[in-house]
Amino acid sequence: MANGSSCADIVDPPGSEPYLLTPGPLTTSPRVKAAMLRDWGSWDGDFRAMTATLRRQLLELVCSSGTVEEFDCVPMQGSGTFVVEAMLGSFIPRDGRSLVLANGAYGQRIARTLDYLGRSYRLIDKGDYLPPRAEEVARALDEDPDIGHVIVVHCETSSGILNPVEEIAAVVHARGRKLLIDSMSALGAIPLDAAKVPFEAVVSSANKCIEGVPGFGFVIARKEALRAARGRSHSLSLDLHAQWAYMEETGQWRFTPPTHVVAAFLEALGQHRAEGGVSGRLARYVENRDTLVEGMRALGFETLLADRWLSPIIVTFFNPADPRFAFQHFYDLMKGKGFIIYPGKLTVVDSFRIGCIGRLDASVMRRVVKAVGESLEEMGVASAAPPASALEEKARLAA
Amino acid sequence: MANGSSCADIVDPPGSEPYLLTPGPLTTSPRVKAAMLRDWGSWDGDFRAMTATLRRQLLELVCSSGTVEEFDCVPMQGSGTFVVEAMLGSFIPRDGRSLVLANGAYGQRIARTLDYLGRSYRLIDKGDYLPPRAEEVARALDEDPDIGHVIVVHCETSSGILNPVEEIAAVVHARGRKLLIDSMSALGAIPLDAAKVPFEAVVSSANKCIEGVPGFGFVIARKEALRAARGRSHSLSLDLHAQWAYMEETGQWRFTPPTHVVAAFLEALGQHRAEGGVSGRLARYVENRDTLVEGMRALGFETLLADRWLSPIIVTFFNPADPRFAFQHFYDLMKGKGFIIYPGKLTVVDSFRIGCIGRLDASVMRRVVKAVGESLEEMGVASAAPPASALEEKARLAA
Ligand SMILES: Cc1ncc(COP(=O)(O)O)c(C=O)c1O
Ligand SMILES: Cc1ncc(COP(=O)(O)O)c(C=O)c1O
Repeated sequence: MANGSSCADIVDPPGSEPYLLTPGPLTTSPRVKAAMLRDWGSWDGDFRAMTATLRRQLLELVCSSGTVEEFDCVPMQGSGTFVVEAMLGSFIPRDGRSLVLANGAYGQRIARTLDYLGRSYRLIDKGDYLPPRAEEVARALDEDPDIGHVIVVHCETSSGILNPVEEIAAVVHARGRKLLIDSMSALGAIPLDAAKVPFEAVVSSANKCIEGVPGFGFVIARKEALRAARGRSHSLSLDLHAQWAYMEETGQWRFTPPTHVVAAFLEALGQHRAEGGVSGRLARYVENRDTLVEGMRALGFETLLADRWLSPIIVTFFNPADPRFAFQHFYDLMKGKGFIIYPGKLTVVDSFRIGCIGRLDASVMRRVVKAVGESLEEMGVASAAPPASALEEKARLAA
Repeated sequence: MANGSSCADIVDPPGSEPYLLTPGPLTTSPRVKAAMLRDWGSWDGDFRAMTATLRRQLLELVCSSGTVEEFDCVPMQGSGTFVVEAMLGSFIPRDGRSLVLANGAYGQRIARTLDYLGRSYRLIDKGDYLPPRAEEVARALDEDPDIGHVIVVHCETSSGILNPVEEIAAVVHARGRKLLIDSMSALGAIPLDAAKVPFEAVVSSANKCIEGVPGFGFVIARKEALRAARGRSHSLSLDLHAQWAYMEETGQWRFTPPTHVVAAFLEALGQHRAEGGVSGRLARYVENRDTLVEGMRALGFETLLADRWLSPIIVTFFNPADPRFAFQHFYDLMKGKGFIIYPGKLTVVDSFRIGCIGRLDASVMRRVVKAVGESLEEMGVASAAPPASALEEKARLAA
C-alpha cells in the first residue's frame, strides 16, 4: 500500500464543484475531462485507431499473453445496464436456462432483464448482506442440469459487498457450465485474470474503476462465445455479435459512438497504466477505504458488512439511530462542504453509502470524515451509533 | 436568410483539428465542449434540474402551448439507433403490424429492427433517391387495414433527401393510423409542429441539429402512447415507458446518464435558442447548403438529388468519372486541408457526402469548396463531371 498515495495529479475540483463519492459517475481527473475538448469524426482513421487502442488495452487488463488470443473486447454504447443486457441476450441461447446469483439491486436487475428476454432462470437470492458461496452454487447446478450459464455480480455496488467470484468460477467450470460476470464497479481495481478464473464474458463500463466519464460499457468475452452469438440477440442495438463483427471488419462502431467519452476513456486508461494498472489502482482504493472506515468508526458509525466482505469500491454505513439524523439534511450539509454522497439501497435498514473510487486519495478521505463529523454536529446528532436492530441483524448474519 | 451568418461564435477548431462535415458527430462549439469540464452526480438535485430543463426545452421545440400538455420528452442513453429501437419496441404492440417507408439506409435499418423484434410490417422501398409520397402510403393503408403504425424517416441522411413528412402525416391521420418519425438528422433545424403534423412520436439525438456531442437520444411522444407502452418493450434498457415513469417519479434517469454529454447538450440548447431556435438554425444551414451546392456545381460536380428534395442537412455528390479520382485519396487531401467528409452510402452509384450542419457557416463552406477544387487539382482530376450513367439515372428518376 506504500504507493497508494503516489497519484500526483489528484487536485481539488475547481470552484464550488464537489467531489463525487458516488461510484459512477465519479470524480475524474482534469486531464480526462480535457480530452473531451475536441470533436472526432467516427469514420475517420484517427478515431478508428482510438477504438483499436481502447479494445486492446481493455483486453490486456484481464488477459495475459497466454489468453489474449482467446478473448476479445467489444465496447457498446449506453450505460452499464445496456451492456449487461447485451451480454445476457447475446450469450445465453433463447432456450437456455441460467442461474442468477443475487445479493442486491444489480443481481436482481439481472433477473429482471432475463424476465424481459423471456429466458428461463433459477435465482439464488441472498438478500442484502451475504455473498453467494461456492457450495450452494454447486448444489444448484447439480440439482438443475439444464442450467447452462451462471451469472454473478463481482462487486454488488448496492451494498459494497465483494462477491467471491473465484470460488464460484471454480465450481461452475468444474461442472462444465459457463460464467458471465457483471464486474461493473470492480474491473480495473479488483484483479480478474482470465488464465486463473474461468469465465465466458465479463462486462464493465467507462465510469467506474478506470475513471472515465459515463457513456458506454464494454464486454470482454471468449471469441468462441462471440461467434456463437450470431443471430441470437433480441435487440439490434444490443447485438454483441453484430457489433463485434462490424468492428472487426471496419474498425468502426456499428452506430455513432460517444466520441468524446471514448477520448476521455483513453486518457483514463493511460492514467490507469501510469498508476501501475490494476494493482496500483487497488492499492489507492484500499487506502481510501481503510482511511474512510477507520475515521467513520472513530465517529461511532458502523459498517453494514463484516470486514471480510468490505470492498474497496463503496462502503455502506448504517444511519445513526438519533432522530435528529435525516439523510437529506446530512446530504445537503455534506454537499455544502464539497462532498456528494449516495443514499443507501437496502431493503431492510436505513443506510447511506460513500464511494472510495474516482480521482481521490486518502487525504481527501480524511477531509470526508472531518466533514461527516461537522455535519453531525450541525444537525445536533450526539451519537452516530446505529439502532440496536441494525446491529442485531448484522450479528445474526455474521453468525 | 439574412441572419444566416449571424452566428458570432463560429471559430476555427484549434490546431490541426479538422472541421467535421459529417452530420453527427459534427463540429460543436468551444462552449459546448467546455461544458464537459466538470463532473456531476447523477442523483444530485443539480443534475436532476438539468434533466428537467433538457426535457422541457426539447418538448418546446415541437410543441406550442396548445400541445405541450399532450406530449412528453424522454431521453435515452445510447446512440440514435437505440432510441429508434426503443420507440419501435415501446409503441408498436407485439402483435401490431406497421408500414415502413424506406428510401435509404436508415429506413432499411427500421425494417431490420422490426425483424429483430418479431413485429410484422409492410415495406415501401423507394430505393436510394426517391421520396415516399402520400398517395402510395394511402393506398397501402387502404389495402392493409391491419397496419396500425407508419414509420417514416424525416431526412434520410444516407442520401440527404428530405422526405415529405407533412403530406404523409395527413393521410396517415385521416385513416386513423399512427405515425412514428425518425427525425434524427432533422429535428431542431427542420420545423415540426405537433399542432400541424399529427404524429405519435418522434426521435432524434444529441449530436445532430442541436449540435451537442454524441451519447444519447430522445423521444418526444404523446403521453397517451407512453402510458400505453407499459410492459410492452422487448428490452429492459430500451423500455421507454419504464424510463419515463422513473423520470417522472424521481427526476432521474433510470440508469447512469452520460452526465457530461447532457451538460454539453444543455449548452447546445442554449446556443440553439440564441440563434433564433429552429428558424435561425434552418437559415444558417440553408445558407451553408446553398453556398456548398453552388460552389460544387461551379466546379463541375452534380448532386444526386433534384433541388426540390435537397435537404439543408447533408448533400450527396456523384464521384467524378475521371479515373484519377479515388475517394480515399480525396478524403485524405481534404482532411489535410482541415475538412473531414463522408463516404457515400448508396447502393447503385459511387458518391460522397458533405454535411451542412454543425458549428459552421457560409464562410467555412466557401473554404470547403476551395479545398475541393485544390484537391481535384492535386489528384490531377481534370473534370468533376460524373459518369453519364449517373446522370441518366438521375434524369430517369426525375421523370
Ligand atoms: C454492479 C453494477 N451493475 C450494473 C450497474 C448498472 O450500470 P449503469 O447505471 O451504468 O446502467 C451498476 C451501476 O452502478 C453496478 O454497480
Ligand atoms: C435518419 C437517421 N436515423 C438513424 C440514425 C442512427 O443514429 P446513430 O448513428 O446515432 O445510431 C442516423 C444517424 O446518422 C440518421 O441520420
